[in-house]
Amino acid sequence: VLQADEPAILLGKDTAANPVEYLLHALAACLTTSMIYHAAARGIQIEEVESSLEGDIDLHGFLDLDRKVRNGYQGIRVNFKIKADVPDEQLQEIVKLGPGRSPVFDSLTNGVPVSVTAARL
Amino acid sequence: VLQADEPAILLGKDTAANPVEYLLHALAACLTTSMIYHAAARGIQIEEVESSLEGDIDLHGFLDLDRKVRNGYQGIRVNFKIKADVPDEQLQEIVKLGPGRSPVFDSLTNGVPVSVTAARL
Repeated sequence: VLQADEPAILLGKDTAANPVEYLLHALAACLTTSMIYHAAARGIQIEEVESSLEGDIDLHGFLDLDRKVRNGYQGIRVNFKIKADVPDEQLQEIVKLGPGRSPVFDSLTNGVPVSVTAARL
Repeated sequence: VLQADEPAILLGKDTAANPVEYLLHALAACLTTSMIYHAAARGIQIEEVESSLEGDIDLHGFLDLDRKVRNGYQGIRVNFKIKADVPDEQLQEIVKLGPGRSPVFDSLTNGVPVSVTAARL
């Protein structure tokens, strides 16, 4: 079971990550997993990986204050720090394995068709 | 701190949700939050909401076995069950508030530019 909440400014109690933070976590975890998995498949050993993520959301969209502003992220920046005993060229190759293989990166950058249906409980 | 893992077939220990499951959780939480938030803003009371999500990923993409297959979700289906003392017409109106306002739904269906940089740790 995963919890989710919102900060006080969005009427929540901030007891858990909120949905857009979960999205960044999914992206970070997927890029990291994909990078390490495919590096290992090539026999490259990665000692340590850190990542920091930033995303821009203009709440005028979600709060319905400006219909021209999109509801979602306008952009996301991911920065990795990698510890591995490899030359620079191979380091850059490793970094490309994340975006090149990650299911969440592909889903998020290229979009996914989502159907929503509902019935009474 | 959020954990992530993978099932045994992907060399993990299945101790936590995996990244693509976190993506579905982010989507479910965001659609639900957006629906309830905007319904409340309209004075509509929702008693209970359940959701189930299914997504299709063909692992031939991620595992690099077929370059024609995308790495990410090919499609996601969300089904809501809603308990609210409102007429059918208003129930359908409530359901549209999720996709119409959710930042994660917008990000995922319309795509987001993601930049990835890296340095040595």
